[in-house]
This record gives sequence, structure tokens and C-alpha cells, in this order.
Amino acid sequence: MSGTPDTDRDTPDRLRTDLTPVVDAVVDADAAAFVAVGDRFDDDLRYLTRFAGPDRAYATVIRPGQGGSAARATLLAPGLFAEQAEREFVDAARRETASDADAADFHDGVIREVQSGRVGDPAGVRAAAAVDDADGGTAIDDGENDTEEGENDASQTLLVPASIPHDAAVYLERAGYELASTTVVDEIRAVKTPGEIDRIRAVQRAAVAGMARAETVLAESVPVDAAADERLLRWNDEPLTTERLRRAVNATLAGHGVRDAGNTVIGAGPTAADLHYVGTDPIRAGETVLLDLSPRGPDGYYADLTRTFVVDGDGGWSRRAYVAVEAARKAALAEIGPGVTAATVHEEAAAELGAYGFDPSAGEGGAGFTHGTGHGVGVSLHESPSLSSETELRPGHVVTVEPGVYDPAVGGVRLEDLVVVTEDGYEILAEYPFGTIPSTRE
Amino acid sequence: MSGTPDTDRDTPDRLRTDLTPVVDAVVDADAAAFVAVGDRFDDDLRYLTRFAGPDRAYATVIRPGQGGSAARATLLAPGLFAEQAEREFVDAARRETASDADAADFHDGVIREVQSGRVGDPAGVRAAAAVDDADGGTAIDDGENDTEEGENDASQTLLVPASIPHDAAVYLERAGYELASTTVVDEIRAVKTPGEIDRIRAVQRAAVAGMARAETVLAESVPVDAAADERLLRWNDEPLTTERLRRAVNATLAGHGVRDAGNTVIGAGPTAADLHYVGTDPIRAGETVLLDLSPRGPDGYYADLTRTFVVDGDGGWSRRAYVAVEAARKAALAEIGPGVTAATVHEEAAAELGAYGFDPSAGEGGAGFTHGTGHGVGVSLHESPSLSSETELRPGHVVTVEPGVYDPAVGGVRLEDLVVVTEDGYEILAEYPFGTIPSTRE
Repeated sequence: MSGTPDTDRDTPDRLRTDLTPVVDAVVDADAAAFVAVGDRFDDDLRYLTRFAGPDRAYATVIRPGQGGSAARATLLAPGLFAEQAEREFVDAARRETASDADAADFHDGVIREVQSGRVGDPAGVRAAAAVDDADGGTAIDDGENDTEEGENDASQTLLVPASIPHDAAVYLERAGYELASTTVVDEIRAVKTPGEIDRIRAVQRAAVAGMARAETVLAESVPVDAAADERLLRWNDEPLTTERLRRAVNATLAGHGVRDAGNTVIGAGPTAADLHYVGTDPIRAGETVLLDLSPRGPDGYYADLTRTFVVDGDGGWSRRAYVAVEAARKAALAEIGPGVTAATVHEEAAAELGAYGFDPSAGEGGAGFTHGTGHGVGVSLHESPSLSSETELRPGHVVTVEPGVYDPAVGGVRLEDLVVVTEDGYEILAEYPFGTIPSTRE
Repeated sequence: MSGTPDTDRDTPDRLRTDLTPVVDAVVDADAAAFVAVGDRFDDDLRYLTRFAGPDRAYATVIRPGQGGSAARATLLAPGLFAEQAEREFVDAARRETASDADAADFHDGVIREVQSGRVGDPAGVRAAAAVDDADGGTAIDDGENDTEEGENDASQTLLVPASIPHDAAVYLERAGYELASTTVVDEIRAVKTPGEIDRIRAVQRAAVAGMARAETVLAESVPVDAAADERLLRWNDEPLTTERLRRAVNATLAGHGVRDAGNTVIGAGPTAADLHYVGTDPIRAGETVLLDLSPRGPDGYYADLTRTFVVDGDGGWSRRAYVAVEAARKAALAEIGPGVTAATVHEEAAAELGAYGFDPSAGEGGAGFTHGTGHGVGVSLHESPSLSSETELRPGHVVTVEPGVYDPAVGGVRLEDLVVVTEDGYEILAEYPFGTIPSTRE
């Protein structure tokens, strides 16, 4: 069932998902098929199909081979998207040498096909029909949820992601299927191929360029007395706000072919302690300016990079915080490698921050370390493995390492890199320098 | 039940959703509450809460008042997001004069609150608990779907969007509730307030700036002979590709504070006939260059603007197509106004294209007019009303008008504007000039 060897999986042009683990999960569960339903914002579907679909629901059905036939994956394309689905889902998964729609023509031995009929029907109805066709029509469409045995022994169970839209689930149940949720897609997404790592590295490089832009703007900014106790930054003779800095960063990201994805979080002073604050604040001399960039590349992969700067600071809290966070970062990285329990990484970072006198487990909105040390990154910005979980790290896991300390009255310092776990440790994907004092980087 | 008058609904800083139609729908259905579950990519939740949440599921529960108490909307905030939820969901909905968490302090008379307990529980479980609390705990958690009457007459029905995640639906059913789907959110989203129209206009202005950038790049480009029959464009002494043009557009969008949202579709020649093609093609002299920009603004509202240019063309197909599409556009616009059946707009555009000799209802991938004339735009890029539907247009409807004709062997021409239906017709939101020959616009 595991198809042919994965010799030409990813290419410089195309990422090709190996669907055999999904096929195997269906076989192991004695189910009829795996069914996923969602729109372009559903990252499981994006990963499985490599189809960047529309903002309305479509479905994918993956079925094992029966009686010697090959496994088959069907994309039920929404109206006006059949061409794109054919190109992204079918053509891209073909071997270079492909000649026909035969299993051997696909890199993982799973035949891809697009169905574009009945586009007016709900995706769940089309998915049920696609499974029925393969089953020889044994499913009973009686409007009831109970499972009935058909004329042959085809399974009436379907594997689905737990968050499949409820209307689609109801249609599948009405068609006579029983649903069982599966986490197989989460699991296979967590371990990246070399091709996926290349894509993530490329997006992280764009994030590095965006950060260099921000640091350069800060380096070029000049403090001007605004009140007895307040010095506001000016850049190019105008006040520098977090929004102005965000626009400069996002324009650089766009110029590098990635999109900011609404994830360019910039805080200054107290708002740097608020993890997801997006505002238009003036930036003051001496306060922490925290930039967290998480752009998304053309293949759907995210990056994640955070640095913290202080223009014309006087040491104090921000200096102490920076030293502690740098130490926590080193302590966390020192743990990363294959076979390590992920939570150990968080525990080491927290212990180091504690040793520097910061609360290692402050509550939300508190003073100290208020969040986890890291999370997986892929076609979702947050995916498995979490560095707070009991997962064992494996080569191919891509995770953020992002200790930080915050004081809601003062500011926040966080340093974040993206690393891939390798056979003998880890590799930082696109490095960026450290230091609180901004330098011109362009 | 309809709360206090909507005197200070939207402000320059904040959009405030009127939740009373949702409360009224719950009362009309004799239901206990409205429940929505989703993540930051769920546009219904974004609209209802104005909370730009994380990429994991959270829930909102909206309940009518009982026994003289006010209606109440509860956001069950995901971990690390309570502060942001408080700011965006609660504080932003308060009147300027608010003093306490009393109904009169909220613009629509619906009390907002954030609950941040039990963040480790699934959103559906937390939502069921929130309804239970309000019901005095009458729901029966017996793991069965059957409805049982509690000790009082509290309803056991919940209104939900049809696409609520299945796991959340199952948790709600296990807690003793019966689910009924509602389209109330679609309906209220379709009619925009003046504040929403201002936001959409502002994003469309950014799209206009992006288009001006693209047109200027094309105007500055120079054809160079590449082969006997092929003249490729060069810009700034390098080949001009659709990807290079896209980066220039997206950087301009970012500089204007909006994000491209992965929606900058640029086709050249045959790929201009492929509605959703995103590629890196070289651009040739004489072929149609179709740019469809749909950026998203900071409040979540989309814009949508399409123009088509030809550099150094020789007339022929593209000239005939452009004239026909311009005529179809005028015919469509001439229909738009309150009381008009939306489908009439599409029919008039199609008829006009037919009169110019193009197939007015070509199939997907065919030659002629292959899609509908327009769709609603708001916090989703595609929402109600569709210009192919039987909906009666109303003041506040914001729709695209986008006739186009395509020939897969040659190219495509589409012209798209965004209009709001007014009391006496329509207004184009941010105009952009017409013409196939690109001019310098910056």
C-alpha cells in the first residue's frame, strides 16, 4: 500500500505530498476513505492537495486500492477552479516521465484526479457520491445515521479531520457513513521533507530582509524631545509610529515575493508586552521595540522571526531582560536534537529566565515569561510539535525558539529563530544578528 | 429585544457590529443562543466580534435577555488572547460615555464579556458550558442527541452557522442541545453601514495605488525582439515577468497599509484567460496583461479591482474584446439600483457581450464570458449578494461589476470595479481610468 519509492518527491518547482500515510491510515482503520472538506484557509487541504483553492468549500477523497487497483485521490473542484486544480493537484504530482494517469506516473503511486461535475452541490454531498462510486454504490442514503451493511463488505466508515465542517459531516452521515476522526494529517505535516525545509528557509530569508529593513529604519531614526520626560523618534523628518515601521517592513516582504499575512506584530514600550498588539503608536527613545514577523511564502509555508531593539536606551530593565532572554535562547537551543522530549526545551528556557530573576511562568498579562518557548511552523503558522508537549523531537521538525520576558508597565523583549531538527542537532534557518542597539543593515 | 438606537455605531477608530439581529433570530427560533466556533480565518466570527484572533478555534455565544436582563454576547478567548479580546470585542463596542458593563454602555444594548477560563478545553465544550450557565444548568450532559426537557422551560435549541466545525457541533449535541443552522450572519453582513463602506473605499483606494504602480511599470517597459515572432518586455533593463510585476504591486499595497492577501492575480496572454493563475511568466508585447487586485485592509475588509492592458499591441482580438467588455460594464452598471433583482445585472452584461459576438455563457475554460458578473465584498472577498442570484439589491450592498471575455489560446480582458448600491443608484468606490495602452500614473 505504500506505493513506489519516493525518489522524485519534491522538485525546485513543485512540492509533492506523499499521500501513502493517509492511505495506510484508511487501511489500518478498515475505513472506506479519508475525506477532507474546507476552503483555501484549510491548511490540511492545502498540504494534501497543494491546491490553492477559493474561499468556498471543496473536498478531497483519498481511497486505498481495491482488488489490485491503485490508491486514488480525488479533488472535487469548485466551479471555475477545475483548470487550476488539474494543474496544481494532478499535473504537479506527476513524475517527469509521466505518460498516462497510471499509478506509476505519480511519485507516490497514488493516482490523482479532478472531478468537476455537480459543482452546484455542497462539497459534502459530492464527497459522499465520490466514495459511493468507488464502493459500487453500497452506501445507503436513507437520511439516518445508523450504519447498514451493503451488498458487499465495503466499509461504511470514513476517516475525517475532527474540524470538518458540520454540514459536510451531516451529508456524509446521511449517505450512510459513520465518521471517525483522524490526526494522521497533523502527524505527517509535522515532519518536513528537504523540499519543504528549502521553502521555509526561503521565506525566513525574506523575513530576515524585512527585519533588516526595520532595524535600518530604527538606526536612522532620531529622538526629539516631545515633553519633559518623553523623547519621540522621528524618521525622514516625520514621527515614527509602529504602523509606519510595519508598512516599511511589509513593503520589503512584498518586494521579496512573500506576503505579510497580517502577521507583522510591532509593539513599542508597554504594547511590546501585549503579545498580539497591532497598533499605530508613536515610538519613544529608550523603550523596547519588539518586531515579530511571520510572513507566508507562495507555496503556503510560513516563517517566524522576532527581534527587539532599543533606540538610545539607558540600560535598566530592557538591558537585564535582553541578557536573560539571550541566555534562555542559548539554553533552549542547547537542548534541541533528535530524541529529546520537546517540553525539555521549554523547561530549560524557563529555568534560565528564572535564574535571571524573571518569573518563569507568569500568567497571561503578567510580568515575566508569559508563553511557551516554541511551536512547529509549516503551512500553518502554529502546528505540531509544540515545545511544551511530550513529543519526541525528530529530524525534519521545524520549530520556533522564542523565549521572552515582559513587564506590562515597561515593555517586552523576545528573540525568536526558526530551527530545523537534524540528525545530529539543529540548524537555524536564516540567521539574523543580535543586539539591542539598531544598526544599518541594508 | 432590539436594544437602544444605533446612534454611535461606527467611529473613525472602530467598527461596531450590531448584534441585535442575531439576538432577534434566536428569539424568533425560540432557541437558547447563537453559537459560532472558528479561528481567525472564520469571517463570520471576525464580523460578529471584531476580534482578529489566533489560528486556533475559539467560540462566541450570543443569548437574548431573560426576565428583564439584557442580551449578552460572550467571547470564549483562547489562551494568550484574553487581553486582545477584551480590547477588540468589549472595549471597542462600548459607548464613549461608558461607565460600567451595563447594557446601556454598549452601542446596541448587548452586553459584551470575555471569558478566559478553561482555555485548555475545546471551544465547543466551553461554548456549551457558557450556554448552560445562562440556562441555570438545565442542559443534560448524557452523551445522547435526544432533547430532554429540563426543570424549567429553557430552550434546548442552538442556532449555529452550517459550517461550524463538526467536533464543536458534537460537543454541543452531547451537552444536550439540538442544533439548527441559521443564515442570519450572511444576511446582516451583506448590507454595509456607512462605516464599513468607508473601510472598503479606503482599501479600494490602496488597490487603485497598486494598479497605478502596475500600469506605470508597464508604461515604462520596452519590447525587445526575442525571437522571430516574439517581443518580450523589459523594465529597468531586466525581463518583466508577471512575478516581478506582482512584487511591485504588492510592495505598493503594503506601503499603503493593506495586505495583498495572496490575491494579486496577474496573467499575460493565454494565462490571462485562466481566472486564478499565479505564475512567473515573461510578458510579451501585444498580449493582454490582466491584473486582478483584491487586497485586505487592517479591519478585515477586502477590495477588488481589475484592469487589462496591452503594451505595443496591434489591435485585433484584444481590441475587440476590450470594446465589448467596456460596453458590458456600462450595461451592467446601468441596471444597478435598489429594488433591482441582482441577476438582471448579470443578464444585461452577458447580453451585451453576446451582441458583440462573444459567447455569453461559455463553459469553464471556454472562449467567451466564463463567469458571473459580480459578487458581494466585505470581510470575505466573496459574500452575498451574488449578481447571479435572485436577491433584490438594497442600499448598502457592495458588489463587484466585472464582465470579461477570454480565449484560452490568446488571452483575456476583464474590467472590474467595486460599487455600493445607494438610495438612488450606485457609487463607484475609488475610480480608476480605462484604456488598453498603459500610461504613467505615478
